[in-house]
Parts: sequence; structure tokens; C-alpha cells
Amino acid sequence: MAGPRVERVRRVPYAKHAGRRAAIVEAAAEVFAARGYHAGSFQQVADRVGMSQSSLFHYFPTKRDLLLAVLERRDAVGAMRPDRVHASSFVDEVLAVARANTEIPGVIELYATLSGEAVTEGHPARDYFTRRFAGLRADFAADFRILRELGLLRDGVDPDRAATSLVGLWDGLQLQSLLDPRVDVVGCLRDYLDGILLPDPEPA
Amino acid sequence: MAGPRVERVRRVPYAKHAGRRAAIVEAAAEVFAARGYHAGSFQQVADRVGMSQSSLFHYFPTKRDLLLAVLERRDAVGAMRPDRVHASSFVDEVLAVARANTEIPGVIELYATLSGEAVTEGHPARDYFTRRFAGLRADFAADFRILRELGLLRDGVDPDRAATSLVGLWDGLQLQSLLDPRVDVVGCLRDYLDGILLPDPEPA
Repeated sequence: MAGPRVERVRRVPYAKHAGRRAAIVEAAAEVFAARGYHAGSFQQVADRVGMSQSSLFHYFPTKRDLLLAVLERRDAVGAMRPDRVHASSFVDEVLAVARANTEIPGVIELYATLSGEAVTEGHPARDYFTRRFAGLRADFAADFRILRELGLLRDGVDPDRAATSLVGLWDGLQLQSLLDPRVDVVGCLRDYLDGILLPDPEPA
Repeated sequence: MAGPRVERVRRVPYAKHAGRRAAIVEAAAEVFAARGYHAGSFQQVADRVGMSQSSLFHYFPTKRDLLLAVLERRDAVGAMRPDRVHASSFVDEVLAVARANTEIPGVIELYATLSGEAVTEGHPARDYFTRRFAGLRADFAADFRILRELGLLRDGVDPDRAATSLVGLWDGLQLQSLLDPRVDVVGCLRDYLDGILLPDPEPA
């Protein structure tokens, strides 16, 4: 952020500043979810929060800054993966997150729209989604390796490919469910995990 | 299309008209793939084919008409599913289409961008993708039912949920592969199908 702008913003008390910033990011998320990044405009975001464009610039000097703030907020609001788990409660945790995602269709819609747009060359969220997918794959692969050590992964299942498939399946199912709510994201994810994991051994 | 416009277009010989129309649809596909539907403009398409906007209107009265032509062309260029198959050659056919899709990243990119945008309320491609996904699910479910009758579907696999999962997995993997070409779409699809299908019986 440029120095003079930061100075001017500092005149607003911090709590008020943070509250306004959050309201702007919320409005930007709505605009990008409804129209996509390219078609969404600074003016639409400013209108939604009842601010002038020049006031908005104090908080976010570029549309790209606004997009990155929306994506960071998304990560905070709707984490896509459970904390590391060491047994087949892994399934419960994945399904709990999937179920929670059905409660935040706006966030999932934003994610579908932006991730689809982001594949285009030079899109400002391209790096974000590339890193995000790589991170999800690495985390799930690590989980599957632990499950394999515990004897809970079926023979022949490759942890890296299973991780890639789980991330892909999840995204693809969510996309379908946004167009047809009868699509059972949680049920299909459960089927997939049941197919690659072995049941927990009975307690002795 | 409005009557007078059709009349004017008819003065152009048919082959030339069809050639121009194809060039416009090609250009529109590039514009929508690069920017999305909302941000892509008639002017950008006209510039790409070296036509005035008003000439373009003779062929496509609205941007929506242009989008629908692009989507129809996509169906012709890159069919997403194999013809109906009755045995485990099903796997070979699915994988052949998946492999062919890797040769047309521009089409897959367009599909990812537009399907992501289409989830937003009122998007002109929303109906198209809703119908498309429903059709793919119904077709694959019919294939899985036939495979079940042939004794080639594993016990407990639900044909409808497997169809939904196959479509979702395929889309999600393609999205990841557009951001990281190391993602093995074909290999992951093969893993999934191997997990739900039984091997062909040995010939006697």
C-alpha cells in the first residue's frame, strides 16, 4: 500500500477501519460471485457499501488487492479440509466439512466462479488456485500415507492419486450441486472414501 | 432471428455465410475462454474477425446467441462421453475421450470458465449446464446399470451416485490439470473406474 494512503486511513479509528474493511470484502465477494472477477467492478463494490470509489481506494488500491482479500477471507470462512486426522475418523471429518459447505452456497459459488475463471492465462487468482490445489493435494496425500501405515488404505491405492481424485471429485460435485441441489455431495464423497479405505478394526 | 436481418444475410452465398459464421463462433470461443462471458464483449469478437459490430449483429443478434452457438460448437468438437458401450470396454472409451480432451485445452478451459460462471443466478448458460450435467448423469447411470446386469459392477455401487461421481471427478480433475499439467486426469479416472468395476471374465 502506498504511504500517503495508509496515513489517511490511520485517521479512522482502528475498529471502525477494520469493520469497514470487512464490509468491503463482503461486498466484493458478492459482486465477484454474481459476475466473476473480470466483469465485477470497483464501482459496484463501492455502491454496495455506500462509499465513493476514491474512499474504496484507501482500503484497496487495486481490484486485484480486493480479489486477494476475498480469497483470504474465503479460506477463513470455509476451510475446505479438516485438520490432520490419524484414523478413519478422517472420513467423518471430510464429510463434516462437505456438509458445512452446503450451508454456505454463496462461498461455494464464489469459489466455483473464480476457480473456473482462474484457469485463463494471466488471471490474478491463477497463482492462488494453483497453490491452493497443490496444497490440498499434498495435505490429503500425507493423510492417506498415514492411513496406509495404519493399515486402513486398500492395497493398490496410490496416496497421491487418491488425494488428487478426492480434491477433484469434491470440486466437481459441488459444481453440480450448485446447479441441481439434489446432487448428494456428501453421499458421493462417502462412497469414494469407502471404496479406497478399509473399515476400522473392531476394538478388542 | 429477425426477418430483415436474415434477408440481408441471404445475399451472401451460403458457403461464405457458413464460413464466416464459423469464424465468428471460433473468435467468440477464444474471447469467452480468455475473459469469461460477462467480461467478453461483442466488440472484441468483431475485432478478432475483422468485422464491424453491425455486421456481426446480422449473424448473432445478441451476445447470448453467440454464447449458445459457442456451447453447441463445443459439444460437436469435444464430446465429453463415449457412445453407449455394453461391456468393460466402457473404461477404454471413457479414457479415450479423457485423453482426447487433453489435446484440446482451449475447449476445456472455455468449459471450465463458463461452467464456473454459469452457477450464478440468471447466467445465460445456466440452463445449458444444468441440462448438460443431468444428461451426462443419466447416460452414465444407464451405462452402469447395463454393466451391473453384465455382472461387471461391484456389489454395493449405486449406478446413479457412481454416474454423478464420475462426472464430478472428471470436471474437477480437468480443472486441476489446467493449472498443473502434471495432474494425471486419465490415470485418476482409471483408478476410479477400476475401483467400482469388476474385471471382464476370462474368455473360455
